[in-house]
Amino acid sequence: MPEQTNGQTNGNNPDRPREPIVSPYQSKYPDPMSNVSNFKIIESTLREGEQFANAFFDTAKKIEIAKALDDIGVDYLELTSPMASEQSRLDCTAIANLGLKAKILTHIRCHMDDAKVAISTGVDGLDVVIGTSSYLREFSHGKDMDYITAKAIEVITFIKKSGLEVRFSTEDSFRSDLVDLLSIYKAVDKIGVNRVGIADTVGCANPRQVYELVKTLRSVVSCDIECHFHNDTGCAIANAYAALEAGATHIDTSVLGIGERNGITPLGGLFARMYAGDKEYVKNKYNLHKIRDVENIVAEAVDVTVPFNNYITGYCAFTHKAGIHAKAILNNPSTYEILKPEDFGMTRYVSIGHRLTGWNAVKNRVEQLNLDLTDEDAKAVTQKIKALADVHGALSLDMVDGLLKKFHEAKGDGTHKEVLNRIESPAQIVA
Amino acid sequence: MPEQTNGQTNGNNPDRPREPIVSPYQSKYPDPMSNVSNFKIIESTLREGEQFANAFFDTAKKIEIAKALDDIGVDYLELTSPMASEQSRLDCTAIANLGLKAKILTHIRCHMDDAKVAISTGVDGLDVVIGTSSYLREFSHGKDMDYITAKAIEVITFIKKSGLEVRFSTEDSFRSDLVDLLSIYKAVDKIGVNRVGIADTVGCANPRQVYELVKTLRSVVSCDIECHFHNDTGCAIANAYAALEAGATHIDTSVLGIGERNGITPLGGLFARMYAGDKEYVKNKYNLHKIRDVENIVAEAVDVTVPFNNYITGYCAFTHKAGIHAKAILNNPSTYEILKPEDFGMTRYVSIGHRLTGWNAVKNRVEQLNLDLTDEDAKAVTQKIKALADVHGALSLDMVDGLLKKFHEAKGDGTHKEVLNRIESPAQIVA
Repeated sequence: MPEQTNGQTNGNNPDRPREPIVSPYQSKYPDPMSNVSNFKIIESTLREGEQFANAFFDTAKKIEIAKALDDIGVDYLELTSPMASEQSRLDCTAIANLGLKAKILTHIRCHMDDAKVAISTGVDGLDVVIGTSSYLREFSHGKDMDYITAKAIEVITFIKKSGLEVRFSTEDSFRSDLVDLLSIYKAVDKIGVNRVGIADTVGCANPRQVYELVKTLRSVVSCDIECHFHNDTGCAIANAYAALEAGATHIDTSVLGIGERNGITPLGGLFARMYAGDKEYVKNKYNLHKIRDVENIVAEAVDVTVPFNNYITGYCAFTHKAGIHAKAILNNPSTYEILKPEDFGMTRYVSIGHRLTGWNAVKNRVEQLNLDLTDEDAKAVTQKIKALADVHGALSLDMVDGLLKKFHEAKGDGTHKEVLNRIESPAQIVA
Repeated sequence: MPEQTNGQTNGNNPDRPREPIVSPYQSKYPDPMSNVSNFKIIESTLREGEQFANAFFDTAKKIEIAKALDDIGVDYLELTSPMASEQSRLDCTAIANLGLKAKILTHIRCHMDDAKVAISTGVDGLDVVIGTSSYLREFSHGKDMDYITAKAIEVITFIKKSGLEVRFSTEDSFRSDLVDLLSIYKAVDKIGVNRVGIADTVGCANPRQVYELVKTLRSVVSCDIECHFHNDTGCAIANAYAALEAGATHIDTSVLGIGERNGITPLGGLFARMYAGDKEYVKNKYNLHKIRDVENIVAEAVDVTVPFNNYITGYCAFTHKAGIHAKAILNNPSTYEILKPEDFGMTRYVSIGHRLTGWNAVKNRVEQLNLDLTDEDAKAVTQKIKALADVHGALSLDMVDGLLKKFHEAKGDGTHKEVLNRIESPAQIVA
């Protein structure tokens, strides 16, 4: 094939294999604002995830999840506020003392009392949050912007004195007044906050809005920018990507996306998206083979089934079915795959026993079984598969193999056409 | 609350209630390119959906699904090619003759033979597709662009002569050469094709790429623009939205997103997204209450469970749990909801029996139960709920109610504090 190169991905290393270009619309020149190849993950299964309807993690389960996420290589773990309950406080302390590679954060309201208790747990940093939208100011805490700003400065200054990392986030940022937002972010940046956070608390934002807001914020503050996206309207992954393109530095995730309502950016889905953006960065930084394990741990703990259409690990994520697809996939998997299943510890499956099948896929199976059949033979068997599947539904691979073997055997005495004609149901294949 | 208005949504109708502004970043002025308030849905459960690993629809099931989708009000139904199998051809004819409000399309390769058979089924229009990426040209059909263009013109001209609507789509558009793409779209537009289609066949595109490509294409052709997005990297819904913002007119969907691999833009997810974009348009045009029914029909037919985190109908989509959230939701649902559950025939659930609960949510329940308790009482019961949930996991609403009633009863003789102290497990509440 005529190979095209992507200057950004291949760098100047002549030994690195040249990768096919992902899209002609992807710039050949580096984008100085983009952090698609340089981002950090704040894994919030143990905070946002605990707000999922079914979630109740005991200490042992929290530790198991924390260790599994640490094995994957996420940069931070965020834990439920120690103010939520006595056990929540004890669990913060326990996880902060595990000695994980990931930095440990806990999430608190913008109150001095919360900050004091949180610091005492031994975590590495605090994620401070307060609502700034007119909705939240009216219906939740009822405070005005002057009060919020003064409070933020007091709490951040206090946390910084203790030597901990501190993030200041607004809540419902996309329904807050732009001038209010930029004013408070500028104020906290000035006193040395480590990160500011943007949160799409209700899941209303779309990628172009996100890009514009992050780009604007990037020009106002010099600290890091964290983003938190709910998925009510299906943009949590795309918004994370748009935020990184605009200069955000940290993305919040949870395993399977669990959280309030239908949740936030899922860890596995973010891996899939970022792999399409910069495969090498994602592969080298995170242990992608472990995503399935942690998803299974969390799914079992919160009593849900991994969705059939889950990113990467959904049971059909790498199943190819249409005839034309199967042929191309067999020739070159990149034709219909942007994710290599083996990079995630998964395997590809090409389904050939259904009525949409094509003879190229069947012929490929003939070769795998090492049967001596012509193209015409493969076409004849394909027509039989389609006819059977039309009436009885898809044939299993065993059925397809049985049909091919029966046909091949009958070819010895020249009765293969009769054999094919006689078969009127899948039961007769195995008979 | 200080109400803000959104000029675009409210129009000039003084009787229409003023809606709160969704985001300060949403322009107050109409965007002449955007079709967020003017789009059509091409529902492809009976074509793309049939390519889902588990899918096998018999004729009766296809008709049931077609009627359910027609009830929802989708603009088009797309069916599997009549060339796939004999039954597929018969099913096209059967559905074309149902007399549905939706226009019926079938999907064919760019071949004269396919076009002839498809026309004979009585459908309203044909969706013609061919691969143009270097991958597909090399590993699938092996044709060059001159051949593809000549073939496209021949097939489209033939279909138009028969009076049918015709769409011409490339496959794997985001990995095709931009000049090749624009050249062939321009050529088919010139001979009067009804729509051109862009397909992200491998699910690699992101919203900014989509916006750029559709915007560019919009300036090249005068016909409609259809978009088809796979969801491998989590952008299928966001890409659809970005495409409409850039001037696309038609979006392909399937129920629950079923299709090749992990599928395409889901119908329900697109409703959620477009509702956030222009609620009135979506509510007035589509029968949103029916989405759950058709999802259940399809989920049962393909033997999958509706994902726990599904848009709108996932069982936790409208469940609120965190204490601070629950309080605000009780004060005003818009605080944490961008989708009104009742607009989709769903109901809201505020979970209050867990360790993250807050006393405002508990107090609200006190009022619902019409119990005579003070704020201090509600706070005391809340602390007990947190302590019990910390050890035993979340309490059901029945448990919370039982606890409140026991406390209220004991208040009569002043033993309410002792009663609370004596309860050490949820079992003692019901005892």
